[in-house]
Amino acid sequence: MSFNTQTTGVYPIAPTPFLPDGSVDYDSLDRLIDFYRECGSTGVTILGIMGEAAKLEAEEARTIARRVIDRAGIPVVVGVSAPGFAAMRTLARDAMEFGAAGVMVAPAPHLRTDEQILAYFEQAVDSIGADTPWALQDYPLTLTVQMSVPVIAEIMRRHPSCVMLKEEDWPGLEKISALRKMIDDEKLRRFSILTANGGLFLDFEAGRGSDGAMTGYAFPDMLVELHRLHENGEKDAAHDLFDAHLPLIRYEQQPGVGLAVRKHVLRRRGLIAHDGLRRPGPKVSAAAQEEIAYLLTRLARKDARAAL
Amino acid sequence: MSFNTQTTGVYPIAPTPFLPDGSVDYDSLDRLIDFYRECGSTGVTILGIMGEAAKLEAEEARTIARRVIDRAGIPVVVGVSAPGFAAMRTLARDAMEFGAAGVMVAPAPHLRTDEQILAYFEQAVDSIGADTPWALQDYPLTLTVQMSVPVIAEIMRRHPSCVMLKEEDWPGLEKISALRKMIDDEKLRRFSILTANGGLFLDFEAGRGSDGAMTGYAFPDMLVELHRLHENGEKDAAHDLFDAHLPLIRYEQQPGVGLAVRKHVLRRRGLIAHDGLRRPGPKVSAAAQEEIAYLLTRLARKDARAAL
Amino acid sequence: MSFNTQTTGVYPIAPTPFLPDGSVDYDSLDRLIDFYRECGSTGVTILGIMGEAAKLEAEEARTIARRVIDRAGIPVVVGVSAPGFAAMRTLARDAMEFGAAGVMVAPAPHLRTDEQILAYFEQAVDSIGADTPWALQDYPLTLTVQMSVPVIAEIMRRHPSCVMLKEEDWPGLEKISALRKMIDDEKLRRFSILTANGGLFLDFEAGRGSDGAMTGYAFPDMLVELHRLHENGEKDAAHDLFDAHLPLIRYEQQPGVGLAVRKHVLRRRGLIAHDGLRRPGPKVSAAAQEEIAYLLTRLARKDARAAL
Amino acid sequence: MSFNTQTTGVYPIAPTPFLPDGSVDYDSLDRLIDFYRECGSTGVTILGIMGEAAKLEAEEARTIARRVIDRAGIPVVVGVSAPGFAAMRTLARDAMEFGAAGVMVAPAPHLRTDEQILAYFEQAVDSIGADTPWALQDYPLTLTVQMSVPVIAEIMRRHPSCVMLKEEDWPGLEKISALRKMIDDEKLRRFSILTANGGLFLDFEAGRGSDGAMTGYAFPDMLVELHRLHENGEKDAAHDLFDAHLPLIRYEQQPGVGLAVRKHVLRRRGLIAHDGLRRPGPKVSAAAQEEIAYLLTRLARKDARAAL
Repeated sequence: MSFNTQTTGVYPIAPTPFLPDGSVDYDSLDRLIDFYRECGSTGVTILGIMGEAAKLEAEEARTIARRVIDRAGIPVVVGVSAPGFAAMRTLARDAMEFGAAGVMVAPAPHLRTDEQILAYFEQAVDSIGADTPWALQDYPLTLTVQMSVPVIAEIMRRHPSCVMLKEEDWPGLEKISALRKMIDDEKLRRFSILTANGGLFLDFEAGRGSDGAMTGYAFPDMLVELHRLHENGEKDAAHDLFDAHLPLIRYEQQPGVGLAVRKHVLRRRGLIAHDGLRRPGPKVSAAAQEEIAYLLTRLARKDARAAL
Repeated sequence: MSFNTQTTGVYPIAPTPFLPDGSVDYDSLDRLIDFYRECGSTGVTILGIMGEAAKLEAEEARTIARRVIDRAGIPVVVGVSAPGFAAMRTLARDAMEFGAAGVMVAPAPHLRTDEQILAYFEQAVDSIGADTPWALQDYPLTLTVQMSVPVIAEIMRRHPSCVMLKEEDWPGLEKISALRKMIDDEKLRRFSILTANGGLFLDFEAGRGSDGAMTGYAFPDMLVELHRLHENGEKDAAHDLFDAHLPLIRYEQQPGVGLAVRKHVLRRRGLIAHDGLRRPGPKVSAAAQEEIAYLLTRLARKDARAAL
Repeated sequence: MSFNTQTTGVYPIAPTPFLPDGSVDYDSLDRLIDFYRECGSTGVTILGIMGEAAKLEAEEARTIARRVIDRAGIPVVVGVSAPGFAAMRTLARDAMEFGAAGVMVAPAPHLRTDEQILAYFEQAVDSIGADTPWALQDYPLTLTVQMSVPVIAEIMRRHPSCVMLKEEDWPGLEKISALRKMIDDEKLRRFSILTANGGLFLDFEAGRGSDGAMTGYAFPDMLVELHRLHENGEKDAAHDLFDAHLPLIRYEQQPGVGLAVRKHVLRRRGLIAHDGLRRPGPKVSAAAQEEIAYLLTRLARKDARAAL
Repeated sequence: MSFNTQTTGVYPIAPTPFLPDGSVDYDSLDRLIDFYRECGSTGVTILGIMGEAAKLEAEEARTIARRVIDRAGIPVVVGVSAPGFAAMRTLARDAMEFGAAGVMVAPAPHLRTDEQILAYFEQAVDSIGADTPWALQDYPLTLTVQMSVPVIAEIMRRHPSCVMLKEEDWPGLEKISALRKMIDDEKLRRFSILTANGGLFLDFEAGRGSDGAMTGYAFPDMLVELHRLHENGEKDAAHDLFDAHLPLIRYEQQPGVGLAVRKHVLRRRGLIAHDGLRRPGPKVSAAAQEEIAYLLTRLARKDARAAL
């Protein structure tokens, strides 16, 4: 089960499907997880920001974690970011007991200085347990926390249990290059770098030194194919595939409404039954639905997966 | 049991006492709640920001709410602010079932426009139930959400169940005057205004139209006395009392470390057994302890309650 | 000269070219302005955020404004956003005396509530003069000020001299639809809506009701062509052109480094002599230069303008 | 002329007086500066945040700087913070040519990581000239930039021309202690630490290791007296004086309206002719004027300077 410093490949970020009444739609969740495995994903990440984790009750989060871990057949990483370390500790402990491959931790939104960030992750590692493998999420656009290359490097030095960086700074290409160079120059021990940001720069991130993707784009099967093309050195083909999807990737990467777009496409693909977000959450307007349909039609001329 | 639009008086904000191992110190909590009642508080507010609510697990919060409500003998208001409405709904429902007088809701930190704020409280009221009395917390310094007078007025118009404003904008005096004038001019229905901000402007807030205090200063008994002086029109005596306490009030109102100072004083007063915050939290340094001791010594010359 | 409520078309946002020693490169500025006119731009906007206006001294800004206005032969809009209204007043007065078509004003970064935003633009209009036509810039990502649809509508109601909205919220499509609907329903008087955000959603913004583009993408000639395709109802051709450029548009729209990318491409196109930003500013790394070259090569297969 | 690493004493922050028509009131400025010198100030700081520097045009700032420097007879420090380094460079050069003792620089509001902060001050020092003595302003509440103790220490290490820290973090006591300890332990070279924050913690800052005050409280003569008491080791007398002023200090330290309160008191003291802020700026309401009058009356019982 691959969730360690050597991990390469694709970890889709799973949304949490809901029924129209706002309760968790476990059937859709099962279907989605099966699809991730079947399309060749390395693993799957649940209960992240795009999994609407902050809207779940503690008991719901635990139930989802257990169900996905039992079913997935691939490594499951569980997002355990929480307003307090008590909740983080409990969810991490439970997730690991259920059989999670590891957890994911994002910095709390109030952190500003390097000192504060380093102190936070000391406590986070203490909370999840120093032997629990974890991914560090670097997502300043949403989290408002800026972690510089030296800070990320220092976190990696202090915490051998941090096996992966989920890199989604914007811009992030130079950051990936800088960290990869430190690793190559043996100034920093190896860790896995998966990228996200909705996939908006996946065409160049592999060339900068990333090991794959951890993002929730509605075509995870395309992410898997793209990763293989990069691995095989088929650069032009990779860009052709990416460029065909970019109009939709870009449309899905709109803050706020993006997750609604993503769920809408997943529903049209038949992977989930309903596309509503748990309240509060935006909806996809009629105009937006038309635009998405148009984008899918255009995409389908190049990628049959989009012919819905 | 007074928690309604007519409420006047003092609602101390209760800290959550912890044992050295980080678990909740229920004996201290009992003692503290007893003290609030015995010193003449109108009610008590638990699980707010200063109650370290964000660091508690859902089950702990529930246990604390039940225990305090069972014991208090005065109205208990339960803070139910949460990252998602699911958690808010559950805690509010449980708190009301346990016998809470009402709940307190703060705006989520990401809210910016008036539209967003109004939409948020539509959903919050839907979550806690339209018949649950609640206090609106206006605390921009910590929450980063700025609610203007027109927005607060609109919330009051839309939601009859909002019986109280916990006003702690900084500055806030003109805001209190403006809202009180709208009520007096019958442009807005009556609601209770209690003020906070650590008490830093309690000397003038009554004159501006507040109905009392909802704050956590380590001398709630002084807050009760100050309220009586204001009610009796003993203005100079009220200012004498306030000014004597102001050096300590000011010291306790430091962001971040303020709660540690407050717990330190409460411990020195014998009201709680240990003064530690649940991690992560700042500590009171040796230098700060000396400064607090010096402030208490000076205060004791004018207020015997400070002779510890 | 078209800068009024009926304006349609393309207003490129002009960067400010600098010589290697950091002084303004007026020869390049002339060449760039000539190009904007010759490629069919409706007008041009100078001294905006992407014109590095905040790094210029007052006297430099004035000199640039006079030179561009004298030379352009098309309407020139001058960005006059400044930390204080005194500087805004002077620059607006000078720009209009030089013959500017109007000015552009962005909200100051500290504004939060609707009340604050409306009060700010009262003072801004007082500063620039109530008879000076101006464009309102709505750019939350960089300015951190969120203006809702009702607030923008209220600004338009209060200030007839506001002839244009430069819309670059992200996401912004629903905002354009909502404002256009208010105009069509005669609930709001007509004003021009040009969109920006680097052009990232130009493929759908026309369909939502925008009147054109005001952005600085390094191929303003493509923006002009795209606008004509939209005007002629050639939807598929418009999307084909846009999709060909999207990989580069997206690359150029990276915060911080984006302007350096833009200047790099403008230099490669021969439109400016040097691509450096005035300090402090990021540089385009060797790896990024390779990526841009690769993007241009791919683009050139579909658009000969990119064959550099 | 004392503005160096050994400086102790009081540097009042001068407000900029305006006439009712919004132009600079030079007569009042002269009177104010004379008062600062006559009451025993070590020096004076002009064109800071409380000097409404951001609302001045470049030429006004220059005129003010020249006039104050010509007249003061004590060292003048000129605030040169600006949105761009070009404007900073020009104002610093002019100020030093006029005879300023040094300049003051605050971090730009967008800075977040330690790396960004250090890079910013590299460029700032390059702009003002490596031989220009300067004070570093640490004011997170208003500037939104958090500089940790290690970052401040690193700035001091890299830039020998930084002779002073204007410390006004909130809380800031532990920061002063930590920096002073590093100096005492010879881990850091000596620099002057003056404190601000409206004076809200001046009673304890000397004990923590500050060298005096750089703040704009409307009784600079009291600040001078307080500094002497601290120097003479008259601790209780210092606290008596401070505590008498604290209700007013606290009232004047309200964000936004605080400067209006300060100017109101300065006008009542006869030190400036008009108390208006340059637009946009808050006014002191009738209710606030009454509260200030009441505070002054109470203060006058202990300090005759307040008998106005």
